[in-house]
Amino acid sequence: MNREQLFQYIVKKRSFLCVGLDSDPSLFPASVASEKDSIFKFNKAIIDATHKYAVAFKPNLAFYEAEGASGWEQLERTVEYIRSVDPTLFIIADAKRGDIGNTADRYARAFFEKMDADAVTLAPYMGRDSVEPFLKFENKWAILLALTSNESAVDFELDIYKKVIAKGIEWGSSDKLMFVVGATRPERLAEIRSLAPDHFFLVPGVGAQGGTIAEVAAAGMNSKCGLLVNISRNIIFAGKGENFAVAAEKRAAEAALEMSEYLNSAGI
Amino acid sequence: MNREQLFQYIVKKRSFLCVGLDSDPSLFPASVASEKDSIFKFNKAIIDATHKYAVAFKPNLAFYEAEGASGWEQLERTVEYIRSVDPTLFIIADAKRGDIGNTADRYARAFFEKMDADAVTLAPYMGRDSVEPFLKFENKWAILLALTSNESAVDFELDIYKKVIAKGIEWGSSDKLMFVVGATRPERLAEIRSLAPDHFFLVPGVGAQGGTIAEVAAAGMNSKCGLLVNISRNIIFAGKGENFAVAAEKRAAEAALEMSEYLNSAGI
Repeated sequence: MNREQLFQYIVKKRSFLCVGLDSDPSLFPASVASEKDSIFKFNKAIIDATHKYAVAFKPNLAFYEAEGASGWEQLERTVEYIRSVDPTLFIIADAKRGDIGNTADRYARAFFEKMDADAVTLAPYMGRDSVEPFLKFENKWAILLALTSNESAVDFELDIYKKVIAKGIEWGSSDKLMFVVGATRPERLAEIRSLAPDHFFLVPGVGAQGGTIAEVAAAGMNSKCGLLVNISRNIIFAGKGENFAVAAEKRAAEAALEMSEYLNSAGI
Repeated sequence: MNREQLFQYIVKKRSFLCVGLDSDPSLFPASVASEKDSIFKFNKAIIDATHKYAVAFKPNLAFYEAEGASGWEQLERTVEYIRSVDPTLFIIADAKRGDIGNTADRYARAFFEKMDADAVTLAPYMGRDSVEPFLKFENKWAILLALTSNESAVDFELDIYKKVIAKGIEWGSSDKLMFVVGATRPERLAEIRSLAPDHFFLVPGVGAQGGTIAEVAAAGMNSKCGLLVNISRNIIFAGKGENFAVAAEKRAAEAALEMSEYLNSAGI
């Protein structure tokens, strides 16, 4: 999928919602937690309930790796299931990988060939070598951490995020590369939009971390939308009990409705 | 294992060699490649051949993830096998993870509880949040990327590696935290040793990438050795054919012999 195709999908669905599959088994309701493949079962229910309102799903690798080989297998099944529900859904492996060239090449093949994700999140620390192998795959995306939503982004990111944006634009066109820009610093989001007018931003930090869709849309939207707003816990754990899927659907629908209004206002 | 225990293990084995298990199936000899669990079989042969000369093994996660759930399962078996051969061997999951607190906590549990690795490599880009969860586990280690061995380390690392060293020392004592410092820039290695006199360094870049053990020992050794020098391809793929384990043993023995001389010279 290239940028125009992603944009058209957003236009069609009236949403730029990415549902984050931070599927933490300790928060599953009892009926799901007791299943052997509880992560996949939970994800399937969430995907069924929310896919109408979302353009993307983002499994957070940590929650799968924490279960070892079984977790990895459930991650693979989750990706396959998303594809089977709607092949156009944009699948982001939130892996934050970053390693030297020959190793990065392996990671790219793990996520793009073995797993059929559309995009992988990458940490830029090690520079160009660690990003380029991901840009060689047609219609696949590298999503580079720029300024993240966590408190300690101030430790190092503030020193170099502008350089990361500049280098990222040099390395990858807006058809292949996005940036992660947190929702928790809207003033910086507006500044980063001016530095990277065409590139899509994957925006975490809405909900549990305190950012809002309104601020993100105001600061970050461009003529091709240019935003994928991720919500994880606030959707998938909206309901704590057996009605979790209904609660997730309600929350996803609310988010999508709000997004459709910002798209309308922008004439998209 | 704390720093003193690691040092005593180095003293006993007269080596500070870490064997990197970058186990790339496309480079396996035919007899191994044809096996269903070829990565584990290859690793087992390498571990049997080299463990006498090494104090650490470092599986590079990318090569396991590239095989999906089966690769992850072979990684788990590899870690178990290393433990069964010699429980003191230091096992480094070369994962270069880095994510917000609740996610980092999951990764820590994945590698320290589910897998029983001694250490995990971490990318510092996202700051303190992404490192602290790994420091809460007793006798386990976080290994923070500081200045890596790849060419494009110049892109961002040169701007902030001194700050990474300073913050890392603030976050984690020399019993819990190491730094990755590449062998390909020995002058910087000496400088970083002066910034972090007590902390262990994990040093990649010897062999295939051009660094030498002699330069690393001269620039980086401290009174508790303070070095784990990693060699991957130059050992595990020293022989291309069916004699790969014999060739690996020979190369590991040579490296350990050279290391023992530097330990002797330093009065260790």
